[in-house]
Amino acid sequence: MNANLTVKEMKTWVRVVGGSVCSPKGFTAGGLHCGIKRKRRDLGWIYCNVPANSTAVYTTNLFQAAPLKVTQESIGSNGKLQGIIVNSGNANSITGDEGLQNAYMMRKSFANQTGLEEEDVAVVSTGVIGEQLPIKKLLNGIDQVICIGDNNNAAEFEEAILTTDTFTKNECVQIKIKDKVITIGGAAKGSGMIHPNMATMLGFITTDVHIEQKALEKALKSVTTQTFNMITVDGDTSTNDMVIVMASGLAHNELLHEDDPDYHLFVEGLQEVSLSLAKQIARDGEGATKLIEVTVEGTLTEQDAQRISKTIVGSSLVKTAIFGEDANWGRIVSAIGYSGIALDPDLISVSIGSIKVVEKGLPYGFSEEEAKNYLSNEEIQISVQIGVGNEKATAWGCDLSYDYVRINASYRT
Amino acid sequence: MNANLTVKEMKTWVRVVGGSVCSPKGFTAGGLHCGIKRKRRDLGWIYCNVPANSTAVYTTNLFQAAPLKVTQESIGSNGKLQGIIVNSGNANSITGDEGLQNAYMMRKSFANQTGLEEEDVAVVSTGVIGEQLPIKKLLNGIDQVICIGDNNNAAEFEEAILTTDTFTKNECVQIKIKDKVITIGGAAKGSGMIHPNMATMLGFITTDVHIEQKALEKALKSVTTQTFNMITVDGDTSTNDMVIVMASGLAHNELLHEDDPDYHLFVEGLQEVSLSLAKQIARDGEGATKLIEVTVEGTLTEQDAQRISKTIVGSSLVKTAIFGEDANWGRIVSAIGYSGIALDPDLISVSIGSIKVVEKGLPYGFSEEEAKNYLSNEEIQISVQIGVGNEKATAWGCDLSYDYVRINASYRT
Repeated sequence: MNANLTVKEMKTWVRVVGGSVCSPKGFTAGGLHCGIKRKRRDLGWIYCNVPANSTAVYTTNLFQAAPLKVTQESIGSNGKLQGIIVNSGNANSITGDEGLQNAYMMRKSFANQTGLEEEDVAVVSTGVIGEQLPIKKLLNGIDQVICIGDNNNAAEFEEAILTTDTFTKNECVQIKIKDKVITIGGAAKGSGMIHPNMATMLGFITTDVHIEQKALEKALKSVTTQTFNMITVDGDTSTNDMVIVMASGLAHNELLHEDDPDYHLFVEGLQEVSLSLAKQIARDGEGATKLIEVTVEGTLTEQDAQRISKTIVGSSLVKTAIFGEDANWGRIVSAIGYSGIALDPDLISVSIGSIKVVEKGLPYGFSEEEAKNYLSNEEIQISVQIGVGNEKATAWGCDLSYDYVRINASYRT
Repeated sequence: MNANLTVKEMKTWVRVVGGSVCSPKGFTAGGLHCGIKRKRRDLGWIYCNVPANSTAVYTTNLFQAAPLKVTQESIGSNGKLQGIIVNSGNANSITGDEGLQNAYMMRKSFANQTGLEEEDVAVVSTGVIGEQLPIKKLLNGIDQVICIGDNNNAAEFEEAILTTDTFTKNECVQIKIKDKVITIGGAAKGSGMIHPNMATMLGFITTDVHIEQKALEKALKSVTTQTFNMITVDGDTSTNDMVIVMASGLAHNELLHEDDPDYHLFVEGLQEVSLSLAKQIARDGEGATKLIEVTVEGTLTEQDAQRISKTIVGSSLVKTAIFGEDANWGRIVSAIGYSGIALDPDLISVSIGSIKVVEKGLPYGFSEEEAKNYLSNEEIQISVQIGVGNEKATAWGCDLSYDYVRINASYRT
């Protein structure tokens, strides 16, 4: 399935302007300043009125931070979450047993404060690696959390999870399943890092769909492969990456199974929210001035297309060329050639925007002026035809600018 | 075998100060300006008085440039080369059939000019991708080549193969095999690219050892794995990378087989020349201010250690931290974690220089001042202990600076 394309063609969802993680029925959220960061909000939470079928995907980095272990344990216990507590400014990563105990303490404290079971609470951290959490400040902050009520503080939550992102990231869509309106909302943070070590992608998605936990898990996995896992800022995979979905069921639709003919409608809505958040993260990559979208078609498998598109969008040489607004197609072709996928160089065609630059393995005459003009846009599309099959994939990234170096060369303290 | 370490401990070779590709018996070389570049030398050659047993390793990029095909054909015909003709300023890559015919024409013209057989001539190009060679200028240049004579113009050759490298690269060592002095000389260019698309690593090694072609091939392959293939500047693999070795046999040692007890002496000399050239390339990476050496020990296989060390030295976040002289060990640990090699996070130790920063998976208190002081050096060593086995490997790279972005964002024309 390529839900991306399907969605564009069929538009089974409607975008909710101003929507957020608080839009689906049953959810509230908020954020406050507890003192990990100097001034800005650094503690956020999502609360659901009922235990919500939940699932998550986690970083593949072998150094998984402590909060990921605690969250996996919570979701693993009964497939449900009712609250998420998040801090920014400290990743609680590579912090040993003390770090793990601190993550458990965050969970316990938030559960006590809100009257939840501990195993219904997820814990999330993002920030500096290798320093212990200032646990007293955190616990004091958690003591101030007020979850019950109908006030929508999603904007506070969206702020509280940021590190050095330059804007908050959210999305919300609605779909109709068997005459019930289902809402899916999301928030995310990307990998800005004025204080280095803060590279973490976090995604939080709420929905009021009534869905089996197994079906929710399957939906998130399939959607992540085509959205969050298809973005790259600098090729460095954090120890704290995590995307969590909570489904309250309060839309009161008939329980959705994965073999329900309407299951795909929910997946398409989830895909749209995930895709939107992922693209916002790519666009806000450190120092980025442009969003780059690379679509690769004509491969034997979708995995091949994913590998090639991610190789192109991850190439430092392609990224600097786009920053310099240079239609340097040789770098794109070279990246295709070292992507590790078997292909026939004589069948490759490449376009930058609608400007064809390579046809069947050979340079295709184009107007440099026209290309330079196109590359002055803030969204750049690169299309590649491999010519050996019928599969396709799209990856997103950003250009590589002086500011990337400035941000990441700055001293931690 | 880890010849690198063995060499340091045993020092089976002596460095020849001022030595070059012309130092081994039988070789001359030179370079001139034929007009591809505006001013600087752009045509170089190596000539041997006798057909030399030869071998080469080539880029793994699927888009292999035309000259690589012609060179493979030459070496493939009888395992011998007597001359190499090289141009810089144009890579003759992604140039289709016309490019292939041009590469053949270069070979034929150089063979005619020097009285060699065509199949004893290698052709090498580096420069812009996707433009046809200015073949008339090239052929006029080849008409001026004078190979016979004892004049040593290695410096001209070393200049002629450069693109935007900031210095020429050479090395020469001598070893003794059964009372005969064997000389091994080398020249190389790295991946500087003021004119983008010029990312190419070229290595040329000459020796007067008398060695079986198969043994020479085996030696180059094993040495390349630990030297040229262990450097990275930006992770982009060129379409034109190539390393060629020519062995004239004029040292008149007894023919060296790979099962000769002294074979390892030659391999160690070849390793030293290759290693020196590879490190010079890494040090001269685009915009580089520092050489980074990453040694990973304690893995189950040498391949695991290679993968982890290359992942660390290739991480944009590690590279920018080193540029910023920041002992940002969290990024090193994170790179280890996403290298794709199975390991136990609790067994990892990391040192920057002699300063231990991580021990058995946990932060190890260190003086930031001492670390900052160490990182002000131009050569930075990072050591990692994985703790699960006895294998090791070393990789080399450079930091990521503003100048990398400046150089690579500049317009091609």
